[in-house]
Amino acid sequence: MSQFFTEEGSAQAVNARMGADVEPRLKIVMASLVKHLHAFIKDVQLTQEEWEAAIGFLTRTGQICGNERQEFILLSDTLGASMLVDALNHRRPAGATENTVLGPFHVVGAPEREMGASITLDGKGETCAFEGRVVDINGNPVAGARLDVWSDNPDGFYDVQQPGIQPQWNNRGIFTTGDDGHYRFIGIKPVSYPIPDDGPVGKMLAALGRHPYRPAHMHFIVTAPGFEKIVTHTFAGDDAYLNSDAVFGVKETLVAPFERASDGNTVWRSPFDFVLTPVGGSGTAGA
Amino acid sequence: MSQFFTEEGSAQAVNARMGADVEPRLKIVMASLVKHLHAFIKDVQLTQEEWEAAIGFLTRTGQICGNERQEFILLSDTLGASMLVDALNHRRPAGATENTVLGPFHVVGAPEREMGASITLDGKGETCAFEGRVVDINGNPVAGARLDVWSDNPDGFYDVQQPGIQPQWNNRGIFTTGDDGHYRFIGIKPVSYPIPDDGPVGKMLAALGRHPYRPAHMHFIVTAPGFEKIVTHTFAGDDAYLNSDAVFGVKETLVAPFERASDGNTVWRSPFDFVLTPVGGSGTAGA
Repeated sequence: MSQFFTEEGSAQAVNARMGADVEPRLKIVMASLVKHLHAFIKDVQLTQEEWEAAIGFLTRTGQICGNERQEFILLSDTLGASMLVDALNHRRPAGATENTVLGPFHVVGAPEREMGASITLDGKGETCAFEGRVVDINGNPVAGARLDVWSDNPDGFYDVQQPGIQPQWNNRGIFTTGDDGHYRFIGIKPVSYPIPDDGPVGKMLAALGRHPYRPAHMHFIVTAPGFEKIVTHTFAGDDAYLNSDAVFGVKETLVAPFERASDGNTVWRSPFDFVLTPVGGSGTAGA
Repeated sequence: MSQFFTEEGSAQAVNARMGADVEPRLKIVMASLVKHLHAFIKDVQLTQEEWEAAIGFLTRTGQICGNERQEFILLSDTLGASMLVDALNHRRPAGATENTVLGPFHVVGAPEREMGASITLDGKGETCAFEGRVVDINGNPVAGARLDVWSDNPDGFYDVQQPGIQPQWNNRGIFTTGDDGHYRFIGIKPVSYPIPDDGPVGKMLAALGRHPYRPAHMHFIVTAPGFEKIVTHTFAGDDAYLNSDAVFGVKETLVAPFERASDGNTVWRSPFDFVLTPVGGSGTAGA
């Protein structure tokens, strides 16, 4: 083979250039990246104009990023890359609650609330009781489990998207289970909403004939000593976008019942049990 | 297969989402991109931390881009993607002059000069006569061929990188062949120089144990009616970086002699003939 770059040996030419002292994991990741990047370019016989369009797209995607906007995460999300990385790193035993994407709207430091309290501060939306148990893989209750929960309001916005319009910490709270492992809080039945689609990723979705909507969901981070952190949502099974989440976050096991409540306290009731995996119980990536 | 996203069916889940009316070529390119992106992530079992590092890298790469800086092109160049796209789109018959990367320093509108004139306005550097013939694939001279040439100065900078220091159009010019197809101009023996390495791509190269240098080269764009445009360089064969061009631009056929001149007019002499391909003579990408 030529010592110089050739069409046939293109990826090898690039990877052969890596130094002897490169950190071993970086070497593996970069060699695979270059191999797949070149294979993609060859598979589609990318034209010069398409290359220029790709450079322009990536540049605009970077330039729109700022404190309030992370367009590369949106890109990763909408191409299914975020969910794939999450899946590889959080394989769990059958029956354990699955992960899904964190999303950009989690805020650290939400108020700790009494079990049974409401997280809805603006009084808007159809009330819903979220309740169930936090258990281990054998069904035993987990005491001291911390549930950090958040959702949008009925206009489809999280509080942090509407400072000055929604009260701070609207539809957010932290709850801790007692000995019985039970949890219960009052929120609203969440609604579907579009991811930010006024930038390059929104244009990409439109060109691909895809809508930017996420089906309605309640976010949960569930932690307890000795167990793996669960980062997940529960989804309303009757949502029109359930089968076409713009970021591919829906998993069959995360679709929760949203039933009309019979106790007269709330409009809806959504029962869901969280099943925790002991630390080290996941088949994580690379394992 | 589940209707939802799964680790196994991840790329299919994303590609199945494309609409029925998507432009056919876009559909092919995006489907392949998603397939290779997911295969890469699975091959290396990308961790969450590595994903975050990748998002941060891409974001910084976009944010440093501006009028004077195109870091995504540098990234494409240093990963061999630019040369690969160029190679796919400019396959030429044996014996025809090959392309290489355009680079970021071409400027449209350089002065037309008399055959034999000097392009070096600052008087710096070791003089070199560039000369040869522009011929067709059968060796017949091509009259009216236009050679747009440019190089760095002996400090390793193009004029546009040093406005106010170098005169405008320093080491640039356009020459047109007569009936004999001969060309000749006086420039300098170019020198190797680093690509901009104070940004994310420079950090990447350092982590990969790679230097940022390009071997010394003279740029040429050669055009003539009825022939394909050649965008190329000639490289000085004695350059220390000839076998490790940071952007993989070197091809065996583009290494030109740089000999001590015997006529006393210049220090060096670099003979090189350009062999043009008739329009439609390339096996271009997709053909």
